[in-house]
Amino acid sequence: MKNLNLLLIFVVFFFSCQSKNTTSEEEKPSKNSKEKFGIVIHGGAGTILKKNMSDSLENAYKAKLKEAIETGYAILESGGSSLDAIEKTINVMENSPLFNAGKGAVFTNDGKNELDASIMDGRTQNAGAVAGVTTVKNPINLARAVMENSEHVMFAREGAEQFAKEQGIELVDPSYFYTENRMKALKRAQKREKVELDHDDKTVFYDPLIKDEKFGTVGCVALDKNGNLAAGTSTGGMTNKRWGRVGDAPIIGAGTYANNNTCAVSSTGWGEFFIRGVVAYDISAMMEYGGKSLAEASKTVIQEKVPEIGGDGGIIAIDSEGNMAMEFNTAGMYRASMDANGKLEIAIYGE
Amino acid sequence: MKNLNLLLIFVVFFFSCQSKNTTSEEEKPSKNSKEKFGIVIHGGAGTILKKNMSDSLENAYKAKLKEAIETGYAILESGGSSLDAIEKTINVMENSPLFNAGKGAVFTNDGKNELDASIMDGRTQNAGAVAGVTTVKNPINLARAVMENSEHVMFAREGAEQFAKEQGIELVDPSYFYTENRMKALKRAQKREKVELDHDDKTVFYDPLIKDEKFGTVGCVALDKNGNLAAGTSTGGMTNKRWGRVGDAPIIGAGTYANNNTCAVSSTGWGEFFIRGVVAYDISAMMEYGGKSLAEASKTVIQEKVPEIGGDGGIIAIDSEGNMAMEFNTAGMYRASMDANGKLEIAIYGE
Repeated sequence: MKNLNLLLIFVVFFFSCQSKNTTSEEEKPSKNSKEKFGIVIHGGAGTILKKNMSDSLENAYKAKLKEAIETGYAILESGGSSLDAIEKTINVMENSPLFNAGKGAVFTNDGKNELDASIMDGRTQNAGAVAGVTTVKNPINLARAVMENSEHVMFAREGAEQFAKEQGIELVDPSYFYTENRMKALKRAQKREKVELDHDDKTVFYDPLIKDEKFGTVGCVALDKNGNLAAGTSTGGMTNKRWGRVGDAPIIGAGTYANNNTCAVSSTGWGEFFIRGVVAYDISAMMEYGGKSLAEASKTVIQEKVPEIGGDGGIIAIDSEGNMAMEFNTAGMYRASMDANGKLEIAIYGE
Repeated sequence: MKNLNLLLIFVVFFFSCQSKNTTSEEEKPSKNSKEKFGIVIHGGAGTILKKNMSDSLENAYKAKLKEAIETGYAILESGGSSLDAIEKTINVMENSPLFNAGKGAVFTNDGKNELDASIMDGRTQNAGAVAGVTTVKNPINLARAVMENSEHVMFAREGAEQFAKEQGIELVDPSYFYTENRMKALKRAQKREKVELDHDDKTVFYDPLIKDEKFGTVGCVALDKNGNLAAGTSTGGMTNKRWGRVGDAPIIGAGTYANNNTCAVSSTGWGEFFIRGVVAYDISAMMEYGGKSLAEASKTVIQEKVPEIGGDGGIIAIDSEGNMAMEFNTAGMYRASMDANGKLEIAIYGE
């Protein structure tokens, strides 16, 4: 059997070399084509059910998703960069109280709003991330400043805010992030926690909007006309979180990953499992080393690998050919996509 | 060509299914064998040159590496877990002022010692990490407590210290971490920074011991007699660091990764590039999806992929068969390994 395996390995290497050369030759012209671009966004995944959603709320979500994705799409269409498209698209969602990011961020156990974000440039594989900032209006902008204006990738808490000040990033009073809805969610979580027997070592997750507060996040991935991929993610974290908990959103490889050779990915899931599964990079690695398509890799990771270790959530992704994926194993995921033809899709629930 | 590719994919799937079944049957007995275990450690990589090292200092390093690895080896030999071996081994290095972790941690720009650590269990792929703690004597112990006694993976700064208190983890006054050598390194870095023209957006790295302060870290990977892999990493970060900078050491996938199906990895490198390259998980993914051996994957990642994006450093790794790797692209890396036969290797410089 060993000999057969060895033989197989040679055969596979031989064919994969052949196919690689041929593919890259075949694909080169299409990569330079100005027609391949696209954008995908998410506004969090979770137990989002039609029966729990009023028509007016559903319409509000859809309208904001549309506004966000059209913002980025316009940038891409006019030849702008995927990084610009991502930043501006995420800003729209950060500035809306509908999503758990920026304005609309959930409260920590001690009644604060601590925000995380990350961004990655598929062309250079440069990246920026911030964790636990409380006065930065748009954390994705700070993540981009970390990427572009420092030698570093990740800054946390007070230090990150000091950097924000030095960079002239827009700061707000922490009270800017206060929303009635999120405060209610915190009180509800803390009330529930009190009656749980095992409250000592558990943090309760809950959000009346998505019926589960592990998953609130916004994200965007884009391919621009120059063939550059980028990904970004921004979040307010987890309702009632403690101990300076860091989720997957600011972790490069888990919450965000982009590489022009493969794909760009933004995650929204139960962060702990997405960190352990190195989810965003896993999809890229499965494409690069395993020869899988974006659709196959996304499906395998979200429908098999993440549940295997006990987690749930979803991802959005786009590859260097403009193929898109919106994969989730929860009841729903706020999401939208627009391709090079301007075809817009907006959805909330599962099929 | 497309049809040929499709055919090839079917052939590969067919054979890989065949070989998977056969391999797992063939390997089962050897995995249960009590003879496969081993441990590898590193104490940081960098421009470590024989000409800059006194005999007495070299002997001190070798003696401490020996003490550390023999501590973990004894645990493994007597049937203990890889997690215990890693924790106790790293403790020895954390408690020594020779290494940039625990006692011996470098100073931040404002004269503090901020420590990071992470640990991962290859059996469950559970993980724990802490970033920026200033009063925890042995950060690796806190990382393990996060993994085992919380639902979370990563805690940062004050929150992490609060958790440490609640968990009864040994705390020390921040002055415990003061060492003359590291304070000199900070002053030297800050003096140099002042005369550099581009000091505004650069943080200067320097350590008189390893001639480069990007790389000081300690780490350990182990395979125990039950076939369980684990990895751990602990660091004092970067001399003169600012803005709450987080390096790769507490990032699961970058600084630390373990999975019983593939390998356990601990990194020591220029953290920013190790985050962007998702280095520790990349080695595992290359084995899992690309069919590479541990040696091949480690070499490709450290000698090709990390330098391609501009980074340097090294890794230690061990796979589920007990194969070991100590790969670095710097002049030296403090390192040691012990296999199931008790064969001890200690080295500092390159070949």
